Amino acid sequence: MAATSKVSAMPLPAASTMQVAPPEWRVTIIEEGSSVKIEHEFGPARRAYLAISTKASTIVKMLWRMGADDPRKVVHGLKVGFALAVVSLFYYLRPLYDGVGGAAMWAVMTVVVIFEYTVGGSLYKGLNRAAATLTGGGLAVGVHYIASKTDEAWELVILNSSVFILASVVTFSRFVPAIKRRFDYGATIFILTFSLVAVSGYRVDQLVNLAQQRLSTIAIGISICLMVCMLICPVWAGSDLHCLIIKNMDKLAESLEGCVEEYFSGKEAQKARGYKCVINSKLSEDSLANLAAWEPAHGPFGFRHPWSQYQQVGAAMRSCAYCIEALHSSSHSEIQAPELMKRHLSEACIKLSSKSSGALKELSACMECMQSSECLSDMVKEMKEAVEEVKSAMKSLPTQCNNELGLEKDDDNMVMKRQSLMESMPLVTFVSLLMEISVKVEGVVEAVEKLGGLAEFKPSGSKF
Amino acid sequence: MAATSKVSAMPLPAASTMQVAPPEWRVTIIEEGSSVKIEHEFGPARRAYLAISTKASTIVKMLWRMGADDPRKVVHGLKVGFALAVVSLFYYLRPLYDGVGGAAMWAVMTVVVIFEYTVGGSLYKGLNRAAATLTGGGLAVGVHYIASKTDEAWELVILNSSVFILASVVTFSRFVPAIKRRFDYGATIFILTFSLVAVSGYRVDQLVNLAQQRLSTIAIGISICLMVCMLICPVWAGSDLHCLIIKNMDKLAESLEGCVEEYFSGKEAQKARGYKCVINSKLSEDSLANLAAWEPAHGPFGFRHPWSQYQQVGAAMRSCAYCIEALHSSSHSEIQAPELMKRHLSEACIKLSSKSSGALKELSACMECMQSSECLSDMVKEMKEAVEEVKSAMKSLPTQCNNELGLEKDDDNMVMKRQSLMESMPLVTFVSLLMEISVKVEGVVEAVEKLGGLAEFKPSGSKF
Repeated sequence: MAATSKVSAMPLPAASTMQVAPPEWRVTIIEEGSSVKIEHEFGPARRAYLAISTKASTIVKMLWRMGADDPRKVVHGLKVGFALAVVSLFYYLRPLYDGVGGAAMWAVMTVVVIFEYTVGGSLYKGLNRAAATLTGGGLAVGVHYIASKTDEAWELVILNSSVFILASVVTFSRFVPAIKRRFDYGATIFILTFSLVAVSGYRVDQLVNLAQQRLSTIAIGISICLMVCMLICPVWAGSDLHCLIIKNMDKLAESLEGCVEEYFSGKEAQKARGYKCVINSKLSEDSLANLAAWEPAHGPFGFRHPWSQYQQVGAAMRSCAYCIEALHSSSHSEIQAPELMKRHLSEACIKLSSKSSGALKELSACMECMQSSECLSDMVKEMKEAVEEVKSAMKSLPTQCNNELGLEKDDDNMVMKRQSLMESMPLVTFVSLLMEISVKVEGVVEAVEKLGGLAEFKPSGSKF
Repeated sequence: MAATSKVSAMPLPAASTMQVAPPEWRVTIIEEGSSVKIEHEFGPARRAYLAISTKASTIVKMLWRMGADDPRKVVHGLKVGFALAVVSLFYYLRPLYDGVGGAAMWAVMTVVVIFEYTVGGSLYKGLNRAAATLTGGGLAVGVHYIASKTDEAWELVILNSSVFILASVVTFSRFVPAIKRRFDYGATIFILTFSLVAVSGYRVDQLVNLAQQRLSTIAIGISICLMVCMLICPVWAGSDLHCLIIKNMDKLAESLEGCVEEYFSGKEAQKARGYKCVINSKLSEDSLANLAAWEPAHGPFGFRHPWSQYQQVGAAMRSCAYCIEALHSSSHSEIQAPELMKRHLSEACIKLSSKSSGALKELSACMECMQSSECLSDMVKEMKEAVEEVKSAMKSLPTQCNNELGLEKDDDNMVMKRQSLMESMPLVTFVSLLMEISVKVEGVVEAVEKLGGLAEFKPSGSKF
């Protein structure tokens, strides 16, 4: 990490004349007017330098690209630094120091561990930490009070076995999915606080005083952290989830169109690979939806926005994406259908794919402006009509091909037909997957409509 | 959590006679010999009790099932409790207390935060914590030394701005995927330690002494934690990953067979859904593979076992599972192929599916005993032959059907044929996906063979 930090602090480290010495020295040498002779030596130092500089410039470029792609990540780094600098003042400045005492350390620690990229993440950790510190601390004080009524040997046994039992049970409960999802961090902090207070209570007499001090510093840490997180360029998990779903829906629409184009034109379409993003974004969707549930109302999203329904939309999209994956592999099958058959079906198939992807695009537009669409039901109807057209094109396929090939009354008829069914297999598969995809698109439409109902999308017309 | 703990401590709470009062009261009331009258009242208390007892018994059953399904989770809870109880002794017992001082708190904290379910997880966190504490603390002492050479105002500026800069840069670097995967926890601890030492250094004179004390306690915490984790019923991420892949491969084989059976027999086969597990286990595979890389040699796995190749095997299996998902939806299509055609193809298809799933089962058996298989290449050859048989069955399909239907010279011939192509679409799709699946199975075979080469599987014959 130290290396990384140095590199990103000086983004252009020594790209040329550094045969002589490690990168840091270069500027010095040039300033001193070093001789040209050294520049022509190709010793191991030069080779090492080249390797290092290549590696360093790769890293710098990568970091630079990462920052340029999403400047919010840079801002997040600065926010953490700022929050820490602010909280450090509690230590440095004497009046504040007298106020919170040596426990100010807990404020620093709180900021470091609960400051997350999204507001939801920080709230989740902050609220978990606050609740777990309160309950864990309270319980520990209670146990300590009971233990203090007994003699010293029993006190040790009671305190130590309570730590053992509580730690075991709470650790086991972390495996429960519902607890894992919402209170995983809280469970850790609960065990931590309970152990620390129970254990330190054995030495420190003023237990309640200590607990109170610790709570106030943790409260300071949490509030500074949340204020910085929410007031300076906040990153909302909810908005991110919303945008991710919209972006994925567009990608799905494009890759569907792309696959069909690729198949019928034979040209590689880059956009045809977009469905892979949809397949791989389950993890992001789930974690964003979990975090979004902790967030207050922001932007167009109310307090109890139905974030879990976004996961349903995501699941419907993934089910569609699996079909596109199969479509993609069937379009790259070794056996290729005769051009004639392809040409016959291409129009209907392209129409169906453009109707399906049109419906997806309309959905993403609806979600973007959070309006329900007037023309969506028409689009779905058109999509279904396009399916019927594909079906009738399929029905008219053998006649037409046979006619054009002039095989109608030929003796070789049967052989050719057999051949043609074999050859048409990938095409038939392709077409039938395309029809399957339109069914899956209907599933996405239903999921989005349900979302629209739950989130009370505005009834006005779509933007098209 | 408190409720959970109580419930799981007494696993059979009041399954029968508890109409009177909430669960906790029952024993008391019975002991006091309470009147029968109360048992027949159906007031709000009774309703509340019923609701609570139903809920409680659900939770208990769920926890019980969870523990019974995987007793290692219960053992993990007990291990954490044990490690904490041991480390607490450092606080309780006076001689030890004098040795490590008030910093013993850090040992407790270390155990709580680095004790993970798998050995790999604990090692990852433990090593990260140790390295980050050393580097962060060392750097902070250095910065502090420089700052102490200046006057007080400058000292404040230097310390505070170094906290700001380092925290920003390290936080940003956490977004780099490679750092995120391996050093995410270390980055947090680095910032934490640096801030704490830099900040507390301003007050505490004996900085080096403090740092040394803290390091020794953290070392105690890490060693207790790792010893308990590795010596008492260790859970190895590596073995878990190995078993997960094997189990998923069996599921894949079963669900392939199940889908084909379901299609041709028309009966629901429960095992046909197994492929869904394969689709959903990417997250587990990735995290287990990351953690396994931290683990020392254990069982049959050497120190540099190629864990990342398991991810490749998993990816190949998922690509196969997507195809089975498409197969599954095509087998539930609305249009059903004529029984005649289905019957004609069923034998070849069932043979192909059993050859494909046989190859998968052989692979899983190979992986289980970590041997390379002698008969695998034969099985793949047989699978390819089965593909050819399916193809020739497809070729002979139209003739046969037409013959049996007696339509060869009929005038309605064309109409029937059109109808039959339309009707045969789902069947053709099904068959062609089945052939595609055999290609994907070859991909899995290749991935496993590469794994076998990297992990040096024993060359002996397979167990069949």
